[in-house]
Amino acid sequence: MKKFIILSFSLFLLSSFTFSQNQKEEILNISKSFVKEALKSDWGYNFLKRLSFLGPRLSGSENSLKSLFWAKKEIEKLGFSKVWLQPTLVDHWERGSIEEAEIIESSGKKINLHIASLGPSVSTNGNWISGNVMEVKGIDELKKVKDKIKGKIVFFNRPMEKELVDTFRAYGRAVRQRTMGASEAAKYGAIAVIVRSVTTKYDNNPHTGVVIYKKGIKKIPAVAIGLIDADILSNKLKKNPNLKLRLRLNCKTYPPAKSYNLIAEIKGSEKPNEVIVLGGHFDSWDLGDGSVDDGSGCIQSLEVLYLFKALKIKPKRTIRVIFFMNEEFGSKNSGAYTYGKYSEKSKEVHLAAIESDRGAAVPRGFTVKTDKKTFNKIKSWLPYLKPALIEWIKPGGSGADVSKIKGTIAQFGYVPDVQRYFDYHHSANDRFSAIHRREFELGSASMAILTYLISEYGF
Amino acid sequence: MKKFIILSFSLFLLSSFTFSQNQKEEILNISKSFVKEALKSDWGYNFLKRLSFLGPRLSGSENSLKSLFWAKKEIEKLGFSKVWLQPTLVDHWERGSIEEAEIIESSGKKINLHIASLGPSVSTNGNWISGNVMEVKGIDELKKVKDKIKGKIVFFNRPMEKELVDTFRAYGRAVRQRTMGASEAAKYGAIAVIVRSVTTKYDNNPHTGVVIYKKGIKKIPAVAIGLIDADILSNKLKKNPNLKLRLRLNCKTYPPAKSYNLIAEIKGSEKPNEVIVLGGHFDSWDLGDGSVDDGSGCIQSLEVLYLFKALKIKPKRTIRVIFFMNEEFGSKNSGAYTYGKYSEKSKEVHLAAIESDRGAAVPRGFTVKTDKKTFNKIKSWLPYLKPALIEWIKPGGSGADVSKIKGTIAQFGYVPDVQRYFDYHHSANDRFSAIHRREFELGSASMAILTYLISEYGF
Repeated sequence: MKKFIILSFSLFLLSSFTFSQNQKEEILNISKSFVKEALKSDWGYNFLKRLSFLGPRLSGSENSLKSLFWAKKEIEKLGFSKVWLQPTLVDHWERGSIEEAEIIESSGKKINLHIASLGPSVSTNGNWISGNVMEVKGIDELKKVKDKIKGKIVFFNRPMEKELVDTFRAYGRAVRQRTMGASEAAKYGAIAVIVRSVTTKYDNNPHTGVVIYKKGIKKIPAVAIGLIDADILSNKLKKNPNLKLRLRLNCKTYPPAKSYNLIAEIKGSEKPNEVIVLGGHFDSWDLGDGSVDDGSGCIQSLEVLYLFKALKIKPKRTIRVIFFMNEEFGSKNSGAYTYGKYSEKSKEVHLAAIESDRGAAVPRGFTVKTDKKTFNKIKSWLPYLKPALIEWIKPGGSGADVSKIKGTIAQFGYVPDVQRYFDYHHSANDRFSAIHRREFELGSASMAILTYLISEYGF
Repeated sequence: MKKFIILSFSLFLLSSFTFSQNQKEEILNISKSFVKEALKSDWGYNFLKRLSFLGPRLSGSENSLKSLFWAKKEIEKLGFSKVWLQPTLVDHWERGSIEEAEIIESSGKKINLHIASLGPSVSTNGNWISGNVMEVKGIDELKKVKDKIKGKIVFFNRPMEKELVDTFRAYGRAVRQRTMGASEAAKYGAIAVIVRSVTTKYDNNPHTGVVIYKKGIKKIPAVAIGLIDADILSNKLKKNPNLKLRLRLNCKTYPPAKSYNLIAEIKGSEKPNEVIVLGGHFDSWDLGDGSVDDGSGCIQSLEVLYLFKALKIKPKRTIRVIFFMNEEFGSKNSGAYTYGKYSEKSKEVHLAAIESDRGAAVPRGFTVKTDKKTFNKIKSWLPYLKPALIEWIKPGGSGADVSKIKGTIAQFGYVPDVQRYFDYHHSANDRFSAIHRREFELGSASMAILTYLISEYGF
């Protein structure tokens, strides 16, 4: 019986968080009203559509600012308590007009490959560079052939593991060749790297992403290649290991640029000094329009404010939405670091933060980083999140942006279903057409419900 | 403390179903191996792709048989215990080559509308019929204007309720105008009905479906209209209630046709007489290729057999996959009724049945119709279904086909996420491109795990 007594006791502990029957019904009704309003209005979906028409929002680009100022103007029309820009430095790199790679067969015949520079890759100044190709399945394999690398183009061809259900895990296991491959290969004298796109979708669109150059190691050009062309290249290398490849790029890295986080908020009616942050990153890669990564996260966050207003719910605590600038380059020149510093100095209490940066598919759950007691309390809220199809709350990280905020009690990551995310991620597939209206809206609703619970009941 | 004691007791009851630690680990490993093999092989996804190339499979059509015989031949190559055809009568109706509707404005100007006959609508023999239009929001509203219906074309324009999270519920609430609208309107002298497509997707593709003619009431032509054209028609009627509309069809109803259920099975190694049925319906509507409804359900079922074979798991009980013919017309001329009768007379024990007919989106849960004790046992299996993203098991119906099987202890419905299903349902949107590889495969895996548990442990 011992385990039952322990179980009973922990049920008792849990029950100390629970609400009266009346409160339960009231919260559930409010929860359902968020879901209804989101699905009925399509407010966020339509806002994101208009944003997507303005094109991609690469950090430091003119278009990222044009889009940000447009969003500011639109948000100002909505009558929230405050809309402001927070200046920040951001990375600035631009894809050039020249971006080509070709297999050169022994006969001299050339076969064009679909590639895209990683950012912030160094360029070849528009000049062809060519070499033999060394195919490896990842950085570990690279080390085994280090003596054969000099003067060659390294082709990292490790696929994502299809058999893993958690695509983020599969991504994590495959992405190192993209982030670190260039410096690792340069150590051994490689002249460039070409990396199999880290994606779950079998097509020929290259998926870009950040390349990290290690200090003190020569920076060499780094590009992604579409999966079909990666397979073609690999097959040709099997037949002819002496195959040559040439490529040219004229991308360019500029000094860090002046940019902004865009911030909008509804002041809390009872505890205005206690802030709940919601956000995503406004910058995107430049191959699609960034509707998935992370236009959706920004606009779902914004829609939370809209839903409170539409339902005439006055939050007790301040709800602050932040469109963070420059997540993609993963450096300290970023809105997340800037806001992180602000949160450290500010006299406000940053109670909680919620990030949406895993796409806009149908809701599954929330991960949360907090203490055990608060976790149990949050977990007891699950029934109120179920109307928006949230099935679970688990311990876990929040996201690259809100995790920089100091002093919070709980940091959440919104987790939609992950099966499709890497079909779109960092490629031309990341367009508004990849957003499903109902799935997107249920995400906004689930974030609104969680925000309501924190605002109303604190921790 | 009383409720804790009751809780403890029910936990005790539950624990009587549980496995030893070793068994638990073994089952979980097998469960994960089903998921891995499905995601890695894409076997079912590729089979469905090849099936989709053969085109739609309307009940009674030549193409439905051609596709069925192709599938039989392909399945015979796989070395299961038995593959056989079970003869059945099915409905036979064919969409004609003429299917047109036009608004006739006062000026005489004609505006073409995107329509599709419902099945088995009567035709106009290719001749135009025309009349004024009476728009109503559903059958209830129709009754209020019954004196104004005579000689008119009734336009049922009730939309699906966007705000409902459960799209099947929204469908159920809106679909009566399609199934029963023609007979209800004919009662009051209508000459035809035109029905707003029952869909969650705002485009102009008409979504067909069954129309049920009540006995003793005149059969009038019945068509579906795309949402954009439904809105155009509605707007024009607001400006001019005397608007005329004309339409012509040359669809045709034939006598019930000879067709088949296609059945494939792996014999049980210990209890061959105990049968677990898995299935979906092979027939589809004819506007798309029927990959979603219900090619996916058939091939996910078939993939369960493949997965057992690929993993060299010999089931203790017989696993039988049935491609049921003619679900869409919802009549008794159907494979489901034929197999139902067979199950009544057969000396086999039909232990359980699982139907997949709610699309191929990412797994969510299983509904099950069974007794309370069996339900608790099945619910205790949830941890082994979680690797395939099954989040819940709830009491509920199975599906139109397996529910006709007699004597089963439990009948299951596989429930993928429902947000996208009615985007495709019964329209030209229901094509192979609507199937997501990973989501489809996780469905097969979840059905395989459930089948394994039943086969291994019974009820």
